[in-house]
Amino acid sequence: LDRTAAVSDRVDGDRLWQRLMDLARVGATGQGGVNRQALSDEEIEARALLAKWGREFGLVTLNDPASNFFLRLPGIDEALPPVLVGSHLDSQPTGGKFDGALGVLAALEVTEALRSTGVQPRRSIEVVAWMNEEGSRFAPGMMGSAAFVGARKLEDIRAITDSAGVTVGAALDRVLRAEPDVRTRPLGLTPTAFLELHIEQGPILEAQHKIIGVVSGIQGKRTFRVRIDGQENHAGTSPRSARRDALVAAVNVLNALHSAMWDREDVVRFTVGMFTVSPNVPSVIPARVTFSIDLRHPDDVALRRLGDAVPDMCRAASVPCEASVTELLYDPPLQFSPGVRAMLGSISSELHIPWMEIPSGAGHDARHLHFVCPTGMIFIPCKDGISHDEAESVLKEHAVDGTRVLAEAVLGFSEGNGQKRA
Amino acid sequence: LDRTAAVSDRVDGDRLWQRLMDLARVGATGQGGVNRQALSDEEIEARALLAKWGREFGLVTLNDPASNFFLRLPGIDEALPPVLVGSHLDSQPTGGKFDGALGVLAALEVTEALRSTGVQPRRSIEVVAWMNEEGSRFAPGMMGSAAFVGARKLEDIRAITDSAGVTVGAALDRVLRAEPDVRTRPLGLTPTAFLELHIEQGPILEAQHKIIGVVSGIQGKRTFRVRIDGQENHAGTSPRSARRDALVAAVNVLNALHSAMWDREDVVRFTVGMFTVSPNVPSVIPARVTFSIDLRHPDDVALRRLGDAVPDMCRAASVPCEASVTELLYDPPLQFSPGVRAMLGSISSELHIPWMEIPSGAGHDARHLHFVCPTGMIFIPCKDGISHDEAESVLKEHAVDGTRVLAEAVLGFSEGNGQKRA
Repeated sequence: LDRTAAVSDRVDGDRLWQRLMDLARVGATGQGGVNRQALSDEEIEARALLAKWGREFGLVTLNDPASNFFLRLPGIDEALPPVLVGSHLDSQPTGGKFDGALGVLAALEVTEALRSTGVQPRRSIEVVAWMNEEGSRFAPGMMGSAAFVGARKLEDIRAITDSAGVTVGAALDRVLRAEPDVRTRPLGLTPTAFLELHIEQGPILEAQHKIIGVVSGIQGKRTFRVRIDGQENHAGTSPRSARRDALVAAVNVLNALHSAMWDREDVVRFTVGMFTVSPNVPSVIPARVTFSIDLRHPDDVALRRLGDAVPDMCRAASVPCEASVTELLYDPPLQFSPGVRAMLGSISSELHIPWMEIPSGAGHDARHLHFVCPTGMIFIPCKDGISHDEAESVLKEHAVDGTRVLAEAVLGFSEGNGQKRA
Repeated sequence: LDRTAAVSDRVDGDRLWQRLMDLARVGATGQGGVNRQALSDEEIEARALLAKWGREFGLVTLNDPASNFFLRLPGIDEALPPVLVGSHLDSQPTGGKFDGALGVLAALEVTEALRSTGVQPRRSIEVVAWMNEEGSRFAPGMMGSAAFVGARKLEDIRAITDSAGVTVGAALDRVLRAEPDVRTRPLGLTPTAFLELHIEQGPILEAQHKIIGVVSGIQGKRTFRVRIDGQENHAGTSPRSARRDALVAAVNVLNALHSAMWDREDVVRFTVGMFTVSPNVPSVIPARVTFSIDLRHPDDVALRRLGDAVPDMCRAASVPCEASVTELLYDPPLQFSPGVRAMLGSISSELHIPWMEIPSGAGHDARHLHFVCPTGMIFIPCKDGISHDEAESVLKEHAVDGTRVLAEAVLGFSEGNGQKRA
C-alpha cells in the first residue's frame, strides 16, 4: 500500500469546503465575514461543532488549562508524543471566513482522509485550535500557544482583561465549563512536530501564480503606544497660533513617521491601526490623541534601527504638544527549520503543485511552537491579498491543494522520520 | 433716588461668587470642571438649585415646551414683554465652571440687586437658562433658543437623538416632569430685549488689558462631516503600495486642509475635533475614518470661499481611498445692533471699566435672539483664553464688573428706553 499517495488523494475537497461554510455561520456578519472573538459564545459554539465533526469518525476531544482545544486520532504507539496540526478558531471583530478556520478544518480533513485509508498512523495526530490567536479582544494574541510552550505563564495570561473588564481567566473557565464531556489535559506536552496551514494574508502568491507558499520564517514585530497631550479649548475662539491641538500634533507625528518608514523596496510594514481622540467633540480642540504603532520587518537590524528612532521622532514632531511613547512588544524575526521547509517544498513538487518560499508578514502560533519542536507552515493565496476583512476569500482548489500537502507532511512526521516521509 | 447708580452698586460679588462655586458642584469633575450635559440629571439638579435661589427673593419660575427655564421678577406693567437676561446651564463633557453658568448667575444677581433697591422695574425681567446651548450631547447646539424664536420647529428638535439613542423629546419631557411646581408657558413670546454676559473663551481681552468686551457680532460658522473609505487588511502582510489605508488618506487630507486654511493674520478658525477610526484595532489597516470640520470666519466672503473648497480638497487628497463630505451647518456672520453696542460701551465708560469692542468666535444663544429683539452681549476675560476645558477660570472682580454693566443695561431696557437708560 502506497500510504503517502493514498492520504493526499483521499482529501475530500467538497467535505472540507462544506465545513468551512458551515463554520462561517457561527458568528457570521452581514458582509460575509465572521465576528468570532476569542473565548466568546461564538467560539464555544465553533468548538462544539468541531468536536461533533471529529467524534463522528472517532477523534477524541481534549482541552487544556489554557483552553486550547485538541482532537486526537490515536496512533499505534500512544507513548510517543503526537504530531500537532491546526490553527485557531477565533477571528477579528470584522474578520474573514478563512483566517484560522482553514488551518483547523484542513487539519480535521487530514485526519479524516488518513482514517479513511484504514491504516493507523504510528504516532497520534492531534488537530489543534489554539486559544486567542488574534488578540483583538484580549491583547496580545497567540496566548494559547504561548501558554502551551511555556513562553508565558498561564497565571499572567489569566489576569489580562478585555475592554469590558472581563479577565481571560474568567472567560477561559467559562469555555472549559461549557465542555463537561471533554477531558482537560495538563500543560507541558512537547509535540513531535507542529504544522499549520494558513491563508497568506498578502498578495504575493497570487501575483507569482503559486498555490503553495512554504513559509521561510516570520518577520519581526515591534509595537508601541503613543500618547500626545495638548490643551483642550474652544474651536471658535482660540487663534491657531495659541493652540496646542493634539490632533494637529498627531498629524505632524504621522507625517514624520510615514517619511521615516518609507522604503523603496516596500519591505517595511508600518501601520497605525488604533487612533483615538479625546474629548472627541466637534467644537472642542482635541486635548489628547492616543495611537498604536505596528512595525514589522524581516531583518532584525532594520527592525531595531527603525523602531529605536520612533520615540524621538514622536517627541520632536509633536511640539508644542507633548508625546510619550511606550514600547509594548518586541518579537525578533525567526526562520523555520530548513529541514521542515525542504520537506514541504519536496511534497509540493511531488504533487505537482506550484510553490515558492515566502516570508510570513503576520505572526502565527507557529512562532511559539518553533521553539519547542520541528515546525512548519504552509500558505495558500487569498483573493487580492485581503485579510482581517469580511471580504477575505480563497479558491476551493487552493484550499484542497494546501490540505493535500499538509496531509503528506503530517503523515511523514507521524511515521517517525521528522524530515522525510517514510 | 438714583436708581441706575443703585443697581450696579448693589451687585454683591461675594454672593455671586459663592453661587458660582455652589453651582459648580453640580456635575463637578475631578479636575475642577463640570460635566453637566444638556437635559441630564445634573442639569435638572442645577435648575432646581437656581429655582430655589430665585424663589428666596420672590422670583417666579417658568419653563416652556422647549425646556427653556425662566425666573421672573414681575414688573409694574406686566402686559409689556419682559427683558430677558441669561445664558445656559449645560456644559461640555469636560467643561469649565463659567461657560454659561456665569451668564445665568449674573442675571440672577442682577434681579436680586434690583430687588434690593426696593423699586419695582417697569417691565418684568426674566433670568433665562436656554436648553442645550453646547450641542455636545444632542447636536447641534443652541436648540432651546432656536425653538424659542421659531428658527427651528420644536418637533424637528424633539426627534434628534444622542449617541445612546435617547431623543431630545424624551429627555426634555423628563426635565419638565421633574419640575411639577413650575408653570409651563407656551412658545411664541417676543421679548423687549435680550442680554447675555459670557466669558470670552479667547485670549484677546486679557492681552489687551480690558475687562469688558462689547460683542460686535458673531463670526460665521460652517461644519462638515468627512468620511474616508479605504480597505481593511492585515497590518503585517499588506505592502504599503497595495494598501488603501483610510488613516493614511485622512492624514493626507488634513495636511491639505491645514495648508489651505492657514492665513498669516490668524483669523481663520479651523478645527477637527472629532475623529474616529474603524475598526480601530492595532493590527488591522483602518478601513474607515470619519471626522468633523468646524470652520469659522467673521467675513462671509472668506467663509464661503474656504468652505466651498473643502469637498474637492478632501476628495483629491484621499486617493486611493474615497472621501465623502456632508455640510451640516452654515451660519453666516452677524453684527449686533449698533444702538445696543453703544449703550453697553457707554455704561462701561460711566462705570470706569476698561472696555473694547470684540467679535465673538463662539456661537451663542444671542445669535437666535438677535433676529427677534434688540440683543447685546458682554464678554469678560477668562484666564489664558482657555474654555471648553476643566481648567477654565475667571477673576472674581471681572465677573463682578461684567454683572454691574449687565445690571445697568437690563434696567435701562426695563425702564422702557431700549437704547439709553432712564
